[in-house]
Amino acid sequence: MMPIPRVVIFDVNETLSDMEPLRVRFEQVGAPRELLDVWFASTLRDGFALTAAGAYADFRSVATAVLRGQLAQVEALRRQPEEAAEHVFSGFAELDVHADVGEGMRRLAGAGVRMVTLTNGAAEVAATLLERAGLADLVERRLSVDEVRRWKPAPEPYLHAARQCGVAPEQCALIAVHPWDIDGAKRAGLQAGWLNRRNSRYPEFFRPPDATGDTLGTLADALLSTA
Amino acid sequence: MMPIPRVVIFDVNETLSDMEPLRVRFEQVGAPRELLDVWFASTLRDGFALTAAGAYADFRSVATAVLRGQLAQVEALRRQPEEAAEHVFSGFAELDVHADVGEGMRRLAGAGVRMVTLTNGAAEVAATLLERAGLADLVERRLSVDEVRRWKPAPEPYLHAARQCGVAPEQCALIAVHPWDIDGAKRAGLQAGWLNRRNSRYPEFFRPPDATGDTLGTLADALLSTA
Repeated sequence: MMPIPRVVIFDVNETLSDMEPLRVRFEQVGAPRELLDVWFASTLRDGFALTAAGAYADFRSVATAVLRGQLAQVEALRRQPEEAAEHVFSGFAELDVHADVGEGMRRLAGAGVRMVTLTNGAAEVAATLLERAGLADLVERRLSVDEVRRWKPAPEPYLHAARQCGVAPEQCALIAVHPWDIDGAKRAGLQAGWLNRRNSRYPEFFRPPDATGDTLGTLADALLSTA
Repeated sequence: MMPIPRVVIFDVNETLSDMEPLRVRFEQVGAPRELLDVWFASTLRDGFALTAAGAYADFRSVATAVLRGQLAQVEALRRQPEEAAEHVFSGFAELDVHADVGEGMRRLAGAGVRMVTLTNGAAEVAATLLERAGLADLVERRLSVDEVRRWKPAPEPYLHAARQCGVAPEQCALIAVHPWDIDGAKRAGLQAGWLNRRNSRYPEFFRPPDATGDTLGTLADALLSTA
């Protein structure tokens, strides 16, 4: 039996924030909107590669260098790759939360669950996002892997988050849209809830989540009833 | 001063093999040809994620599960996702080497350099590829990360390859098109040559290669003259 989680640890990019508006920024610099998917997967690939090799670079450094490289290969690019990459990346600061996030967070708050964020990106991006959404008061800490210099899904960031909250790992539940994040949290000894907004399949090679929901509200209900 | 490498360790997917023909297979199942890029980046992302989290699954398991998930989201898909994924993945067995590989390998052999392959995939895929190209006799071992259950760029596969060849890590040079592979080899203490066929940029957050070339032949010359 799993204990009812006392702390929910939210992933940020794509889990809380809707990254779709970044596609418009790709179009604005003359790149195909589909490049968002290759770019984001490649950024995580390279960040995880550094982690697997025992090294570290911050999200902005990896994401913008990968982006410059990919944009430099786009023939119809309307700006210099450096400037184009900066234009796309600066869109992170203007993203909004998904439509289901506010209600889900309030449901968790109503159940007495504490909430923090834990991102492979910068803590300030999460802070700005939550401020814009009027949800900043519900979240007690905005944590980043910068503090341990290992990207999720290495165990250190998850254990760091639990420690910062003063609770045991198994009293925390990570909530994320990315299966690799669920897998990492489970292996580190946390609970994990998979937010599956797009009716995706969960890859069988990753450890399964303790609960699944297609909105944060339904996932919150499922997580709170797993005990 | 670096010693002249006694053993060259080749990466396989994209470094030796030309993966472009796989795009036709995506089209054959009704998926966009650009999905190849997202799929391959996502496969590496998830394999590296397992490695960073201290776990392992083989390339086929990761690649086909990721592919099934991505194909299931394609509205115009003409086959069931399982069957479509199998059709695309089976294309690996029919790939050929890039046009510059044969001459480059013969130049290395002529200089007395020993050659092996080291892949995140299956050793048999490398074997088939080299057989088809008539280059199998030049390569003394076909190694896979399966043997150490950690994907490159974790240090174990590179060190395993050096050990299998009976030489010190610094007497080996990895040759790869992927910067994350160069970075991993360098951090493990090997030399590394970057095969940059597409005039790409090398990301500054990775350790730089010892030599670069736009064909295997020019790269071989550069590596052999680094001492």
